[in-house]
Amino acid sequence: MSGKSLIPATVNPDLQKERNAASFKVEDFASWWHGGAEKLKFKRDVENYMFQDLKEDADLFLYKSHKDIYEQSIMESIEAAKKLRKLQEERNPGGDDIWPTLYSSIHVAGAMKAGNPFGVQFAMVVKALKQQSTDEQYEEFGKRVANFEISATYAQTELGHGTFLRGLETRADYDRKTDEFILNTPTISAYKWWPGGLGHSSNYCIVVAQLYIDNDPKGVQMFFVQVRDEETHMPLPGIDIGDIGKKMGFYGVNNGFLGLKNVRIPRTRMLMRNAKVHPDGTFVKSPASVLTYFAMVYVRCLIASNASTLISMAATIATRYSAVRRQSPINPNEPEPQIIDHVTQQMKLFPEIATGVAYRLASNYLMSLYVLTSKEIEGGEYGRLPEMHAMACSLKALSSYDSTNGIERLRLACGGHGYLTSANLGNLFVGATASCTYEGENTVLLLQVGRYLMKSWRNVISGKPLAPTTAYLAEANKDFGNWTGSWENLVKALQFSAARKTRTAYESLSQRLKSGQTEHEAANNTGIEFIQAAELHGRAFIADTFLKQFRSLQANSGSVSFNKVIENLLELFLVQTVLKFMGDILMFKRLTPIEISSLQTRLEEVLTKIRPDAVAICDGFDYRDCTLASTLGSYDGNVYERLFEAAKKSPLNQQPVPKSFHEHLKPFMKSNL
Amino acid sequence: MSGKSLIPATVNPDLQKERNAASFKVEDFASWWHGGAEKLKFKRDVENYMFQDLKEDADLFLYKSHKDIYEQSIMESIEAAKKLRKLQEERNPGGDDIWPTLYSSIHVAGAMKAGNPFGVQFAMVVKALKQQSTDEQYEEFGKRVANFEISATYAQTELGHGTFLRGLETRADYDRKTDEFILNTPTISAYKWWPGGLGHSSNYCIVVAQLYIDNDPKGVQMFFVQVRDEETHMPLPGIDIGDIGKKMGFYGVNNGFLGLKNVRIPRTRMLMRNAKVHPDGTFVKSPASVLTYFAMVYVRCLIASNASTLISMAATIATRYSAVRRQSPINPNEPEPQIIDHVTQQMKLFPEIATGVAYRLASNYLMSLYVLTSKEIEGGEYGRLPEMHAMACSLKALSSYDSTNGIERLRLACGGHGYLTSANLGNLFVGATASCTYEGENTVLLLQVGRYLMKSWRNVISGKPLAPTTAYLAEANKDFGNWTGSWENLVKALQFSAARKTRTAYESLSQRLKSGQTEHEAANNTGIEFIQAAELHGRAFIADTFLKQFRSLQANSGSVSFNKVIENLLELFLVQTVLKFMGDILMFKRLTPIEISSLQTRLEEVLTKIRPDAVAICDGFDYRDCTLASTLGSYDGNVYERLFEAAKKSPLNQQPVPKSFHEHLKPFMKSNL
Repeated sequence: MSGKSLIPATVNPDLQKERNAASFKVEDFASWWHGGAEKLKFKRDVENYMFQDLKEDADLFLYKSHKDIYEQSIMESIEAAKKLRKLQEERNPGGDDIWPTLYSSIHVAGAMKAGNPFGVQFAMVVKALKQQSTDEQYEEFGKRVANFEISATYAQTELGHGTFLRGLETRADYDRKTDEFILNTPTISAYKWWPGGLGHSSNYCIVVAQLYIDNDPKGVQMFFVQVRDEETHMPLPGIDIGDIGKKMGFYGVNNGFLGLKNVRIPRTRMLMRNAKVHPDGTFVKSPASVLTYFAMVYVRCLIASNASTLISMAATIATRYSAVRRQSPINPNEPEPQIIDHVTQQMKLFPEIATGVAYRLASNYLMSLYVLTSKEIEGGEYGRLPEMHAMACSLKALSSYDSTNGIERLRLACGGHGYLTSANLGNLFVGATASCTYEGENTVLLLQVGRYLMKSWRNVISGKPLAPTTAYLAEANKDFGNWTGSWENLVKALQFSAARKTRTAYESLSQRLKSGQTEHEAANNTGIEFIQAAELHGRAFIADTFLKQFRSLQANSGSVSFNKVIENLLELFLVQTVLKFMGDILMFKRLTPIEISSLQTRLEEVLTKIRPDAVAICDGFDYRDCTLASTLGSYDGNVYERLFEAAKKSPLNQQPVPKSFHEHLKPFMKSNL
Repeated sequence: MSGKSLIPATVNPDLQKERNAASFKVEDFASWWHGGAEKLKFKRDVENYMFQDLKEDADLFLYKSHKDIYEQSIMESIEAAKKLRKLQEERNPGGDDIWPTLYSSIHVAGAMKAGNPFGVQFAMVVKALKQQSTDEQYEEFGKRVANFEISATYAQTELGHGTFLRGLETRADYDRKTDEFILNTPTISAYKWWPGGLGHSSNYCIVVAQLYIDNDPKGVQMFFVQVRDEETHMPLPGIDIGDIGKKMGFYGVNNGFLGLKNVRIPRTRMLMRNAKVHPDGTFVKSPASVLTYFAMVYVRCLIASNASTLISMAATIATRYSAVRRQSPINPNEPEPQIIDHVTQQMKLFPEIATGVAYRLASNYLMSLYVLTSKEIEGGEYGRLPEMHAMACSLKALSSYDSTNGIERLRLACGGHGYLTSANLGNLFVGATASCTYEGENTVLLLQVGRYLMKSWRNVISGKPLAPTTAYLAEANKDFGNWTGSWENLVKALQFSAARKTRTAYESLSQRLKSGQTEHEAANNTGIEFIQAAELHGRAFIADTFLKQFRSLQANSGSVSFNKVIENLLELFLVQTVLKFMGDILMFKRLTPIEISSLQTRLEEVLTKIRPDAVAICDGFDYRDCTLASTLGSYDGNVYERLFEAAKKSPLNQQPVPKSFHEHLKPFMKSNL
């Protein structure tokens, strides 16, 4: 085994053939996907800068022990911070479009393969300090965090308490005599648990705790607490802190636990922009704030956008691999075809490409509504908030589910090789599936959407106005009308399904209320139907948005061949979604066998239409090899050489005979002679 | 942090309360699940013996590096082999019910947490040598493998070639002059890739290669090849061998690659029980053997049975956790309930328990048919083989899918804690999902079932006899008749769906043939419908088997309270399956809204019925803590203490300040001051 690379300098001919045969310009797609040529160029510039001098063995981090992965993550994330700040200074001094904005972006994740323990610091803590601390507080310690003089994380979740904020056990008692709070985690289930970077990377953190004054509860507040010495990094007295142990993913993110035993902090370390505690112990309530609630909308939009990124990365890997891999002759005595020619393989790949596009459009649209709503809120107008919240909940829940399941399907589409760490599909999966749980567990979110739909249905009944995204509910009491199979008709069918399911759930709920259950018991018992209604509502919204965005693309002319590509993805997305929920549709609309089988035919036909463009579409997502980090998905398609080269790098292969042979295997086999 | 365990000696009171309230005797369930009281006792005896002196830190293997995990796997698997052999001698000398039978069993996997690199040797190689080698060959080297004097694996799959056996590139050329075969992997894609234990653990292996005599291909044959020196373990000349690198699971299984360059072996090392090569180069073909084909049926039954084990393990973990975890008040101002009281949580847990039971019954039934068919084959009767093959393909494909998806659902049901390695749900997932690919990729298998259904439909059309499991196809040309909602009626509805989908697929296929496509092109283009029909056929079979087994349980009297438990699981399984495929059912049978909503009501009602017994049912699966290996799922339910204790064991927590603080983090933060 020599150090010479096995990998040819040329592109795999099957993959090149695909690129040559595409019906549209990849650059058109890439521009559109990234929001215009300028943004695409910016993204590429940043990548070029960040990836120019990456260490080759960064890819090998998963061979390492948990501890060594952590050490690598610190090294890489500090390195990445330095580079991003430098680039910010060079390109746009004083701005924040590069640092810290891109520090948690998937596009620079390739420079922090082992994970970023400081992600929370810039994605959450700095923002929380800006919103929740007074100007003096921000000046005193907020700036230090923003400037990375100290490192801080955000500790809310406890070992025994998650979603239900009021259940938190950590308490902060005000001591009037010393003008201090005394923080305690009174039980094991009160330990803070999960914050990224808390284990060994942060020396401060925001602790969310129940405030008590004279043993009287004043609700949940935020406290800025030092946990480690700035010089020695040793945990301070009363602080029990460490790593929560290995997880399925987020290997180097250093999620930690924190126990507090009579930890005293000055009164001025409670974040007091809103609620306040005066030296004499007077408590001033926070004015009812919708802003915290609104901040969640933003984060959930980001998760949906990220889901779109993850699934389109996985689709890129699996599609390229499917163009290179040959297996199982379609006609006997002919050579094995590219597996992308098997219709069943197309059915594994192309719907996921369409899903990635659908979520990109839906999250972009929601983000634009977010900006609009922000402005409305500044003007004191809060009317759109409940709808925004419901949409963000739906989109977060469905995008995290669909990306998780889609990535797994794509991984399975790569056969055994998809199971190798070097394929990186397993890693994308564990990244996606985590988002089903964090920032609002999916079932909890869908139940919230379900309750929102119940309220909306009450408005339908009483003839009150509906929010734009639920306006269709009122239609569902009418007849569906003709089945035309047009895109508008398919979207309408999904909306009808959602509306009918909402109505049925509402009826079940009402019946339970009539039978004497409390509102909350009845809601719990109708939970399964709430979730079904919420899912359909979300699906209808995503389909509707895809269609509307395509219509606006059409209206803006642009390249005909590019529009055709999006049109095919839209057709696939709508037809497949409708077929998937056919059971719900058939409950309100009797379709003839011909109408149903014509959908099946359309599905098969559009797969054939997408087939020649599949590789080029994925090229248009414009992921760098270093971002995909996949032996199966590299741009050059030299799959087998890359797999083999990755295997040769396994630390186990650096010596021909492992220690255990002499210690265990040989003595045992000899004893059997 | 002291060495004292935090874990109370008592059972969590919420969990104890569940056990006290169960409606049936757990021991009744355990006996039934394990095939009788005697088998249950045997299982427990083996476990007691195997687990008596387990090292406590075996659980920590996932913190280790890839290389150290491997070293641990060798140590543990040798240790386990010794113990099993000793136990075999003590309990049943000369038998094989313990050694090697249990060496790959899930029940002793707790003693080999890092994986078993010698699993293939005893699950496949010894069997293959018995079936494929001559008596002399078995005497010469087969016995040595069986006796573990040498270690061998089975090398078939290549880097570029999987399912399609005839595509293998490794070749063995007969050299008449020296009476030897010359083995070569002529390209990188010809490298053997995946065999368990091949990397560094085996010194021999069966190589599957294309036999050539005078450059004339004679088909795929098996060759017994030495790859490493028995004394030094160094790779022999011409052998390029090593580890294929880290995977999502199977961490210590040491899957390997193998390149062969002019490796010469004596002619007598081709396994010649069937095909033969004489010294003069005469080739004697193997008599057409159905036995190889039949061996796959057995392996696929085992996979289905294993899927049932994996999903019931995951269900045990998630159900116990759901009884201990409290969250989100149902009625405000009341304390947070056990999450198992949320109906949506029940919907995540109980269907998976039912699925585990369904696959256990289906795989047991198929295994009994396998035994019957074996006897028929000995008597020269091969008639049942195609049906057996189709059933095994369906069952393997659906059980691997369902267990994978079910485990993931159960993991998500545990919220964030399900993401921790110490929960062990991630590990169960990666074990299950691998089985979607190995021993016949699921899509390939379902396509085979689809083709079998096409043949069967041809028989329907021409009035030829049908196999017992496809007899229902003939019914589907008739009217469905009344919807009664009885179990028999629900099973019939699934069979009708399968039959109608088969008919539709057949019509699509026929149309394509008429339009001039070759049989194989038409089959490829109808692939999606083949798979849909195959899935429904499999679902109908599993539902039918569950119902029949329950009827026979009823007939055999037994405990009324126990029968009621199985009845509830049956009701849940059937109702949920029918609701899931309602779209297919509504295509041939118009149901009233009341008929459909009554199924929804039955679903909700049966969840409520199962609720008080859920923990006890899981106890009845009788998994030891050491097998579950889960902080969330231990019998005592001391979840938080176990999570915390597991975290404290993280190697990262053995020192308060990591190296990287001084090397990277501190200098960086100081530079920002």
